[in-house]
Amino acid sequence: MAVGQQLFPTMYPVSGFKLGTTCAGIKSADRPDLVVMELAEGSTVAALFTQNAFCAAPVRLCKDHLSTESPRYLVVNTGNANAGTGAQGMNDAEQTCSALATLAGVAVNAVLPFSTGVIGEPLPMQPLLAGLPDAYHNLSEHGWADAAQGILTTDTRPKGSSLQYGDQPITITGISKGSGMIKPNMATMLAYIATDALVDAELLHVALRQVCDKSFNRITVDSDTSTNDSVVLIATGASGVVVDEGNFDQFVTHLQSVFVDLAQAIIRDGEGASKFVSVSVNGALDQDEALRTAFTVAESPLVKTALFASDPNWGRILAAVGRADIDQLEIDQVQIWLNSVLIVDAGARAPSYTEELGQQAMAADDIEIKINLNRGAAEDTVWTTDFSYDYVRINAEYRT
Amino acid sequence: MAVGQQLFPTMYPVSGFKLGTTCAGIKSADRPDLVVMELAEGSTVAALFTQNAFCAAPVRLCKDHLSTESPRYLVVNTGNANAGTGAQGMNDAEQTCSALATLAGVAVNAVLPFSTGVIGEPLPMQPLLAGLPDAYHNLSEHGWADAAQGILTTDTRPKGSSLQYGDQPITITGISKGSGMIKPNMATMLAYIATDALVDAELLHVALRQVCDKSFNRITVDSDTSTNDSVVLIATGASGVVVDEGNFDQFVTHLQSVFVDLAQAIIRDGEGASKFVSVSVNGALDQDEALRTAFTVAESPLVKTALFASDPNWGRILAAVGRADIDQLEIDQVQIWLNSVLIVDAGARAPSYTEELGQQAMAADDIEIKINLNRGAAEDTVWTTDFSYDYVRINAEYRT
Repeated sequence: MAVGQQLFPTMYPVSGFKLGTTCAGIKSADRPDLVVMELAEGSTVAALFTQNAFCAAPVRLCKDHLSTESPRYLVVNTGNANAGTGAQGMNDAEQTCSALATLAGVAVNAVLPFSTGVIGEPLPMQPLLAGLPDAYHNLSEHGWADAAQGILTTDTRPKGSSLQYGDQPITITGISKGSGMIKPNMATMLAYIATDALVDAELLHVALRQVCDKSFNRITVDSDTSTNDSVVLIATGASGVVVDEGNFDQFVTHLQSVFVDLAQAIIRDGEGASKFVSVSVNGALDQDEALRTAFTVAESPLVKTALFASDPNWGRILAAVGRADIDQLEIDQVQIWLNSVLIVDAGARAPSYTEELGQQAMAADDIEIKINLNRGAAEDTVWTTDFSYDYVRINAEYRT
Repeated sequence: MAVGQQLFPTMYPVSGFKLGTTCAGIKSADRPDLVVMELAEGSTVAALFTQNAFCAAPVRLCKDHLSTESPRYLVVNTGNANAGTGAQGMNDAEQTCSALATLAGVAVNAVLPFSTGVIGEPLPMQPLLAGLPDAYHNLSEHGWADAAQGILTTDTRPKGSSLQYGDQPITITGISKGSGMIKPNMATMLAYIATDALVDAELLHVALRQVCDKSFNRITVDSDTSTNDSVVLIATGASGVVVDEGNFDQFVTHLQSVFVDLAQAIIRDGEGASKFVSVSVNGALDQDEALRTAFTVAESPLVKTALFASDPNWGRILAAVGRADIDQLEIDQVQIWLNSVLIVDAGARAPSYTEELGQQAMAADDIEIKINLNRGAAEDTVWTTDFSYDYVRINAEYRT
């Protein structure tokens, strides 16, 4: 299940960045599951990783390699997360990098490894290593659509976003994957975004943090942060157009558009999702209060099951706001809307509200829950899904 | 669905405490839904209430009445929570107290009101007021079993616990209700416990806080704290046996046994529950760290769906521990057991672990997840359930 239709967009190639995909048979046969990406020499790279203490072996190795060498290749497998695998997991991730480095004639530290899939099982090295030459052989600037398929797990569709802007055009193109165990903390499950702008590494990091905080760090399917979250932003510089302080804001605006597309695509394809839900909180005392309230509502199992049932059970939204640990909340000030329908006013059912209006608002695929605390000027928004039978089915059957 | 069989126990009457129940037709006809309780003059009372900011009208009125008068009567309705009902809700709660006060010939402030059920709909005053005389007429020291039925909502069975101890016996008897929207914060949905011990009000409060922290404040079905949580402990003193500092610990030990019974009964009857799960964390740096880790695992939707599937997917437990915000966690020190089976050692799958052993442990109705962080001496335990199709069904259909 997924919310609405979503056509895979036209993907503008990014000069200096290639992707190659193959079916290596890591977990199951005949599905794309191994992706290699090549960065032109001189590319700058910014990356953010999960803050889960049990971060996977490839995440640990990525951090290590990034601190010593400029990346030239990325290698991504799906079907196995290589997480909770101890010393063997580190060896396997190193061996993967080493094999690709040999193929490509670069230093082993110039390769960054990524894995996604089931946690706690050894990485099947034999098919992975056997598949590398084919993925490497397939490298192409037109490889985005195949790569978008090659990184999926329980996702039901590939996720991409691409745009060009400016007179001397800059291209920004990216892919993401993720469907469950989604509450990214500094990054999503996996996302790779490339641009041909010329951006120095420091500025690229600033841009990445800024747009992640308004995209991947604002989504939740099930409040579970994964062990493998990684997002990588690559600037090849091949367009020759320099991004510096003068045009940085313009760059960030367009970059954020691609990031928000990719983050929202993860929610629309959330495990068992039948609704796409924006939870917006304004009138908060500070940003932290706005965000905490939004996440408390977005993660409430009772709100999420009511959304699945298209039931305007606003009492559950109100109860979630009430437990969001808001100091000295004056409940008589709180207002709540479902789309444009005012459902709670002065802390109780709005006089103008009728069950019919609530039902109409809930019938849509896309729903906005808007909460005004009326006590300050801070606001924030997070995106989430409903909780359905299919969420339980998918996660009860995941390993079988 | 509920975990295992649970026979309603023999309930020892508490001298000086009576309960009367009737079918008032508040939400549906022909089910017990209105309960009156009478406390002998001179009884002491301790109560704890939800910390949800949107506490219901009856909770607000209880606090007000408790501050002005010694309670002589409690009145509990099910079928409607009288929460999110604004000024009208306060009027309705006051009118309920007033009607019972007139019947019984006491001051209105000597009556404490309690409501549980759907949030945000006006309390149906007509059937409630019409039912009061019958409930009052039925008052009896043998009314525990009927009252246990009369306070239920989505519960599938009544919850009671009762014991006597000591040479000059002290009796402790109590009932509770709750099945969804369960993460009590200072109290559970509703619980009423009475004893015939003679305990002064201050000491009774100390006892209540102490045992709540080891019972109702250690359970979670769905991490949603209700608007109506209330627990009331009554000491009639009718046994003549004084509880003071000398025998306080003995009293608390027995009181805690009743409280833990009632709290665990709520989990065993949790919405859609097919498992009863203890999550124990030891080796933590401090109590807060132990409790936070236990709740993070107990509330993880991915851990809970794996429990429903009887799938020993220990990677999800490990991922939940990893996001529990433990400062400087050394993942190589972490050990995890399913019952007596060591599944994670040194932060990875234990060498002795086999999928068969995991399956065997998961097949039971009662499961203990034991996590040793191996970095300190603090420990804590919480109780929870799995996440099933029935949880979604019950909460998607609740208002229909």
